[in-house]
Amino acid sequence: MSKVQLIGNELTNIPWQDRPAGSKEIMWRHSENPIIGWNPIEKAARIYNSAVLPYKGEFIGIFRADYRDGIPRLHVGRSKDGLKWVIEEEAIKWKDTKGNDYDPGYAYDPRLVELDGKYYMVWCTDFGGPTLGLGVTEDFEHFTRLENVFIPFNRNGVLFPRKIDGKYMMLSRPSDSGHTPFGDIFISQSYDLEYWGHHRRVMTSGCTWWQGKKIGAGAVPIETSEGWLLLYHGVNGTCNGYVYSIGAALLDLENPSKVLYRTRDYILTPEKDYEVSGFVPGVTFPCSTLYDAKTGRIAVYYGAADTYLAVAYTDADTLINHIKENSFLLPGDEEEYR
Amino acid sequence: MSKVQLIGNELTNIPWQDRPAGSKEIMWRHSENPIIGWNPIEKAARIYNSAVLPYKGEFIGIFRADYRDGIPRLHVGRSKDGLKWVIEEEAIKWKDTKGNDYDPGYAYDPRLVELDGKYYMVWCTDFGGPTLGLGVTEDFEHFTRLENVFIPFNRNGVLFPRKIDGKYMMLSRPSDSGHTPFGDIFISQSYDLEYWGHHRRVMTSGCTWWQGKKIGAGAVPIETSEGWLLLYHGVNGTCNGYVYSIGAALLDLENPSKVLYRTRDYILTPEKDYEVSGFVPGVTFPCSTLYDAKTGRIAVYYGAADTYLAVAYTDADTLINHIKENSFLLPGDEEEYR
Amino acid sequence: MSKVQLIGNELTNIPWQDRPAGSKEIMWRHSENPIIGWNPIEKAARIYNSAVLPYKGEFIGIFRADYRDGIPRLHVGRSKDGLKWVIEEEAIKWKDTKGNDYDPGYAYDPRLVELDGKYYMVWCTDFGGPTLGLGVTEDFEHFTRLENVFIPFNRNGVLFPRKIDGKYMMLSRPSDSGHTPFGDIFISQSYDLEYWGHHRRVMTSGCTWWQGKKIGAGAVPIETSEGWLLLYHGVNGTCNGYVYSIGAALLDLENPSKVLYRTRDYILTPEKDYEVSGFVPGVTFPCSTLYDAKTGRIAVYYGAADTYLAVAYTDADTLINHIKENSFLLPGDEEEYR
Amino acid sequence: MSKVQLIGNELTNIPWQDRPAGSKEIMWRHSENPIIGWNPIEKAARIYNSAVLPYKGEFIGIFRADYRDGIPRLHVGRSKDGLKWVIEEEAIKWKDTKGNDYDPGYAYDPRLVELDGKYYMVWCTDFGGPTLGLGVTEDFEHFTRLENVFIPFNRNGVLFPRKIDGKYMMLSRPSDSGHTPFGDIFISQSYDLEYWGHHRRVMTSGCTWWQGKKIGAGAVPIETSEGWLLLYHGVNGTCNGYVYSIGAALLDLENPSKVLYRTRDYILTPEKDYEVSGFVPGVTFPCSTLYDAKTGRIAVYYGAADTYLAVAYTDADTLINHIKENSFLLPGDEEEYR
Amino acid sequence: MSKVQLIGNELTNIPWQDRPAGSKEIMWRHSENPIIGWNPIEKAARIYNSAVLPYKGEFIGIFRADYRDGIPRLHVGRSKDGLKWVIEEEAIKWKDTKGNDYDPGYAYDPRLVELDGKYYMVWCTDFGGPTLGLGVTEDFEHFTRLENVFIPFNRNGVLFPRKIDGKYMMLSRPSDSGHTPFGDIFISQSYDLEYWGHHRRVMTSGCTWWQGKKIGAGAVPIETSEGWLLLYHGVNGTCNGYVYSIGAALLDLENPSKVLYRTRDYILTPEKDYEVSGFVPGVTFPCSTLYDAKTGRIAVYYGAADTYLAVAYTDADTLINHIKENSFLLPGDEEEYR
Amino acid sequence: MSKVQLIGNELTNIPWQDRPAGSKEIMWRHSENPIIGWNPIEKAARIYNSAVLPYKGEFIGIFRADYRDGIPRLHVGRSKDGLKWVIEEEAIKWKDTKGNDYDPGYAYDPRLVELDGKYYMVWCTDFGGPTLGLGVTEDFEHFTRLENVFIPFNRNGVLFPRKIDGKYMMLSRPSDSGHTPFGDIFISQSYDLEYWGHHRRVMTSGCTWWQGKKIGAGAVPIETSEGWLLLYHGVNGTCNGYVYSIGAALLDLENPSKVLYRTRDYILTPEKDYEVSGFVPGVTFPCSTLYDAKTGRIAVYYGAADTYLAVAYTDADTLINHIKENSFLLPGDEEEYR
Repeated sequence: MSKVQLIGNELTNIPWQDRPAGSKEIMWRHSENPIIGWNPIEKAARIYNSAVLPYKGEFIGIFRADYRDGIPRLHVGRSKDGLKWVIEEEAIKWKDTKGNDYDPGYAYDPRLVELDGKYYMVWCTDFGGPTLGLGVTEDFEHFTRLENVFIPFNRNGVLFPRKIDGKYMMLSRPSDSGHTPFGDIFISQSYDLEYWGHHRRVMTSGCTWWQGKKIGAGAVPIETSEGWLLLYHGVNGTCNGYVYSIGAALLDLENPSKVLYRTRDYILTPEKDYEVSGFVPGVTFPCSTLYDAKTGRIAVYYGAADTYLAVAYTDADTLINHIKENSFLLPGDEEEYR
Repeated sequence: MSKVQLIGNELTNIPWQDRPAGSKEIMWRHSENPIIGWNPIEKAARIYNSAVLPYKGEFIGIFRADYRDGIPRLHVGRSKDGLKWVIEEEAIKWKDTKGNDYDPGYAYDPRLVELDGKYYMVWCTDFGGPTLGLGVTEDFEHFTRLENVFIPFNRNGVLFPRKIDGKYMMLSRPSDSGHTPFGDIFISQSYDLEYWGHHRRVMTSGCTWWQGKKIGAGAVPIETSEGWLLLYHGVNGTCNGYVYSIGAALLDLENPSKVLYRTRDYILTPEKDYEVSGFVPGVTFPCSTLYDAKTGRIAVYYGAADTYLAVAYTDADTLINHIKENSFLLPGDEEEYR
Repeated sequence: MSKVQLIGNELTNIPWQDRPAGSKEIMWRHSENPIIGWNPIEKAARIYNSAVLPYKGEFIGIFRADYRDGIPRLHVGRSKDGLKWVIEEEAIKWKDTKGNDYDPGYAYDPRLVELDGKYYMVWCTDFGGPTLGLGVTEDFEHFTRLENVFIPFNRNGVLFPRKIDGKYMMLSRPSDSGHTPFGDIFISQSYDLEYWGHHRRVMTSGCTWWQGKKIGAGAVPIETSEGWLLLYHGVNGTCNGYVYSIGAALLDLENPSKVLYRTRDYILTPEKDYEVSGFVPGVTFPCSTLYDAKTGRIAVYYGAADTYLAVAYTDADTLINHIKENSFLLPGDEEEYR
Repeated sequence: MSKVQLIGNELTNIPWQDRPAGSKEIMWRHSENPIIGWNPIEKAARIYNSAVLPYKGEFIGIFRADYRDGIPRLHVGRSKDGLKWVIEEEAIKWKDTKGNDYDPGYAYDPRLVELDGKYYMVWCTDFGGPTLGLGVTEDFEHFTRLENVFIPFNRNGVLFPRKIDGKYMMLSRPSDSGHTPFGDIFISQSYDLEYWGHHRRVMTSGCTWWQGKKIGAGAVPIETSEGWLLLYHGVNGTCNGYVYSIGAALLDLENPSKVLYRTRDYILTPEKDYEVSGFVPGVTFPCSTLYDAKTGRIAVYYGAADTYLAVAYTDADTLINHIKENSFLLPGDEEEYR
Repeated sequence: MSKVQLIGNELTNIPWQDRPAGSKEIMWRHSENPIIGWNPIEKAARIYNSAVLPYKGEFIGIFRADYRDGIPRLHVGRSKDGLKWVIEEEAIKWKDTKGNDYDPGYAYDPRLVELDGKYYMVWCTDFGGPTLGLGVTEDFEHFTRLENVFIPFNRNGVLFPRKIDGKYMMLSRPSDSGHTPFGDIFISQSYDLEYWGHHRRVMTSGCTWWQGKKIGAGAVPIETSEGWLLLYHGVNGTCNGYVYSIGAALLDLENPSKVLYRTRDYILTPEKDYEVSGFVPGVTFPCSTLYDAKTGRIAVYYGAADTYLAVAYTDADTLINHIKENSFLLPGDEEEYR
Repeated sequence: MSKVQLIGNELTNIPWQDRPAGSKEIMWRHSENPIIGWNPIEKAARIYNSAVLPYKGEFIGIFRADYRDGIPRLHVGRSKDGLKWVIEEEAIKWKDTKGNDYDPGYAYDPRLVELDGKYYMVWCTDFGGPTLGLGVTEDFEHFTRLENVFIPFNRNGVLFPRKIDGKYMMLSRPSDSGHTPFGDIFISQSYDLEYWGHHRRVMTSGCTWWQGKKIGAGAVPIETSEGWLLLYHGVNGTCNGYVYSIGAALLDLENPSKVLYRTRDYILTPEKDYEVSGFVPGVTFPCSTLYDAKTGRIAVYYGAADTYLAVAYTDADTLINHIKENSFLLPGDEEEYR
């Protein structure tokens, strides 16, 4: 049992590989990466930035599937071991709250969270510009489209796995209408998932170069004895475009707009062929985790090069001790921004 | 009495000039424009985009005052006739809801509405980028800063003067972090002015050139027998920058995300010296109106060239009949956008 | 009679004012400028960049009329003296060559030329981007839309007033889809006004700053004993946008892709209130001339500030001697570019 | 024999590989790709976007060769099997129509067509900006430079392999002076290859993301029983630059500005190492085909990563049935645009 | 005699007007502004950003003269009263240090200082991009071109009127190759005006909006009992371009890279017609001063709208007390930057 | 012994491989490239653009080490054979000239030269924007920070290995504050390494495409019998970013602002996986050489893909004869500019 406590369930069948001998990496890659390659299903060219959960003793997920028309859509996938995935051939079919069919147009970068016994999804939807779509299912067969969280322009919405002080909590990154050369992480609150307010800024980009251009929430935060563990992406602006790396932070458990610790350094950056080369070179983009509260093991699912799905591993002690010992807060991170 | 009915109070002392003989203008300028010129108070170089209301038989307003440091702040002003204004020498001093002093940093383009017996202000505030600030007063001496309405980036927030279906209604224009070369009008809803949702797109920019780049809500909508009367600004992109003109629309009374009619043409555009030349050439920017429900007279307050405050007049019959007879809806304006 | 010979007709009623006493200007403004001001007809806010011709002892023209929806359209106008114009209330109604109605969408910056006893117009039309529209009339009551001259993107097309070597000659400025920060003058040839080829580059922008950003043909060239006299606009890029000035060139009579002389300096630049201030500050844009072959008098019609129509005067000796004595050719101007 | 008929000659020695067992690809890659690698001849670093034809029982082609000075030039190449190519060490030497030497400066992306017993080339040439150069040969030893087709800015010109209604037909893509973030396919007509007119817009970019930024004609259209078969490229704008994929369309045989069918999806996109990585990552750019009218086999030559020449295969039935069954027309594609 | 002491000579014939009655302005305009209007000499359209000095009991200056070709050049001008100027018809003719003729190409925004009994000029010259040219004269008839101060890109060089610690001191603003949307003031040192080093950053732009985009040194600093008095320009970025205002600072006498005080507010901003409208709207650009050490009177010469030369007045007590009482230092201003 | 004479020492242990049989390459890659890969030391993710020298019979160098926070810093490294390097775990610790600790912030792209018995380093440092930092050591254990060479913005500073005409000579590339889409090589002179002047432009970018966007000095020039041998980088602007190649020039021995010869073609361009793919695709960036005056052997150290350190070889005869026989000077290269 780890000294740092992950709050949650035991997950004995979590995908896992021990850290390679001699490695000092904080997060180490699955040796058989990528776990999903080019053209995994008939309709989709690339399945990558995607979100998974334990489900009935196995695993389930919502996957970003870029079709051959270039448009991303959401598919359900299932797996026994979390590594070999069977993706449904058809995209999710939505009903709105009145029971009418709903066509989401494009949909990408889903995040998935179990909350109050239901499964909620947040993704990037079109609403006269990109913003956050919200939906719910109880069985991964019937899906209900809820109200959009915000007006445009927004991306990278992540819902916390439980209410805090009676309120749902949503991380997001205000964006612009294009490829957005800036971006901080904000948090918004809601009593009912319909009306949102009491917005606060959580973390800023800048200062260290790997996250100098923008940052965005990655996986659903994991509750730990040391705070909410947030994996996020940071973006470096090079002379040939953007590079997306992975960082981590600990947020205050009761007031998650306050950053307790935050990694000065990335903990994973594009280095492997499947990360530096593909549809979009230089992307490692975390969207979800699995974790085993008993052992502290964490499996991170991340999109690679906007082409592949990949997995990396860490454990609670390694990661959280690293965050605390290598923290570097930017101005405003600690404070509650008005 | 006019055939088109404005819903509201009699306002016998409304500033007024009849339409000049021979003029076919839908909206005609006050003959002594501008009513506020350069350096009107010691601290401020320019007072322009501002919002006024009848108050205790006279008039009161919240004024955008650009200081000599270039930063805009909000001042209270008072007037007996709505034309000669005495602006307070000091900016509004805010308390937050806990009674602590609150410093808003920059603050611009206020809108002011009487609602449930209080006076609410919406303006553009800094929140890691521009977004909508919200505040309230009952006496124009004590001001309380409420929660920000949205996360960034947003401008041109306008609150309806009554609840609809039990909910507050807020128009706004999602923006970007700079001078925003695009922009549509959205509407958001709230039961408590703290949590906002059920967002809908109201109107799009485009098609006719005077509003080809972007549009934004102007004055607080006036309830009429024909729908909500909304004055808004539209922006034309020329080879030497933007030109801001004034247009008008009628929104459905019970479902204001639906546009009933909308002027194909601007109804006022920069033509006068004080509109085409100044700190920012080519701006007529409506922020508020006064109206007399008995006669249908409407006085429009608009900023000119980001330098001056000016007034123009119209009456309910002239304006609303013009809107209905010269309407041109863009795709999506009529529909309820998901 | 002037020593430099303008080839063409006597035009005794040409608008005219002598050069002011003491002035050394090459081109001097009409003392009652502008001749058309704001809102000249009910539908149009601004009438400016426009083209005129002598017609049945009086004058006629095709006028750019920017409507209150911001969209430019073409109107016919008539004048007895060339200064006071009666503009038709309705835009030109086109038939295509099969006799069907044709709606041109937007239409701006017309040039008008008498050629083979007919009147041809070239203007900027929409064809999946701006390019040159072409039309013809014999009576200014019936107008026929001909084939577009080019694929996009093009602006400032000017047709020569006679065939050269059996071919029609068209000047134009290849552009981009926006406000085009570059631009040279090219010439294209046609036997039938339907099929164009044998394109050559005539003149380049650059070097002297008043024409450093781009240049474009202005008025229909005047045949003279010294070559084709071309008035053109040159654009200076300042830190606050573009400034449009007027220059002049002499092109070889038989090979008009060859520049004989070209003014190093502008001959008119925005200086007057109606030129430096208006809808677009800083524009003097020549679109047509009237000239009297007997006296050598030339009246130049130019748009001012994208708002007004203005007139300036010069005479053949003054202008052409100036061009020849103050010429500065850029690399490639003299040569026939492949 | 295929049910869909390709109009043309038998070509028994066409390069060919059957579709891999189990593959459902519409277009499958040659197993030994790329067929031309880095530094294929002494002068050139990269030979890629190139055009080939059957010639005297063997094969011949015009190749884009990027020299070590970075400048592209055109070389003749010859092959017995269409896969192993011998490229001439010297660039094509041009004469103009008067027999003088002509130096084309840079020259890239050639297309080659047999027409009226001669071989015509269209490529991107410099004419004060990029536009379409045109040349002809009868023996691939003597080359004559003809008139430029258009004034700038233009790229991706493709000549039809026969006259239609007595006129030559040229596809092209109006561009700007840089890397052009937009682009549709137009068609122009000529009786003599010297004078061009009757321009029409054929197809627009947009809607599906793989062709959301721009599109351009690829190989010379193949006449078929179902219409002109056009392979074209579509460009997706990602946060790290452009990705060029291959699509296909069927144009009306007698009125080729009318699109009958058009693939909703790309049929080949950069996936292989030699496509996603090289001088310019993420490019598959079709420039020519060989086809055998008897069997319906089609070999597609495409540039990869602006570095390599590669080949892919399809057959008439597979490709054309796919186009017809997966078609998605954009607004205006079907109509004849004025 | 003023309490704040200006170090220097008596200048009894300094141009002067008392502050208008009732005015609280820190700097008030000459009532007959502008003192130089359009087309002041035959060759030049506009004379504006220019530098003057007392000379032999009268006044002399170096004037920026924009010719009718749009290119700025430097002319000598002379005046008896500092208000009516006679500008030489020919530009300054330079010799290099070897006595050869030197043609400076364009030359703009000169500053002029008497130093060691000679007159030195610094201006913006072309050196493969804009940078600082340096020249010297003893009689305003013979001018010697010295070495360029820096490699590109630089503008707004201002030389101190005496050595400090044995070294010449030069203020400058590192720029870019275009219209430069940023800029701070740096200082460099030299023993011989040929070799420069020991560079330090003096002041940063930002924070207050009137100087939010960039700042640049204006007039030659005046030595005072309170420090070096520096007038500088600050630039506000609006949605329609830049606005140039005037501010002031006091630098440490012995270590002028250290800012003692600096005006939070502009002290003059474009308000008058000749400042907000002209060749470039919205510019007040200080280039030089005259001052009378006995009375403390200061006359400021500033360019207006890149078109006119204008004068404003202040006195030592008024200005310097204002600076000290309304100072707002930005981070780094006080420190010696490495 | 080579016919072209390299001036300098014998270096018998220079890393070396003969040109591969059959190769005609002017510069051939080390067969075991890259010599430094991902994560070479605990703190640094990537070590690449770096500078080496012979030192006490072995080799020493200053290495650009990009830390896991994305920020580059400088480390000392040592090697016995010039290929296997031991990099110090800690960054260089600086003292300023007063003996105080100095923290350089970021530091990248070092160049290292032995001069007057000391070792001088030039690199890109932050000084309110990037410019050239300068430092010195005698033992690679104690490092002294000297004055910055220039005010911003500058990069790619290279110091000559001996004084010329009594003066130190520094090559540099004036830049802008971002990724700089332009850039020429300039030279500046100094008697004392503190004060710099007599700036001249050496070489321009443009014309040939591989160096069409910008150029920058690479390794410290090698004195030869034919002039100073300068390896430099040239940048090609593609639709997906920049490509950095290597070229070479010969500068006049006594007047190095004069270019004698300059390669029309690159001599090495990104082709290998470790050059076209990595943190920044498409970079080969030379920073230093080793050479053996006896044999004429030259080993070039270059950064690859902003990720790896690689080595290539050439010899004096091969390289210098190639430069002289394949030279192509741009306008101004030969002349002394100014």
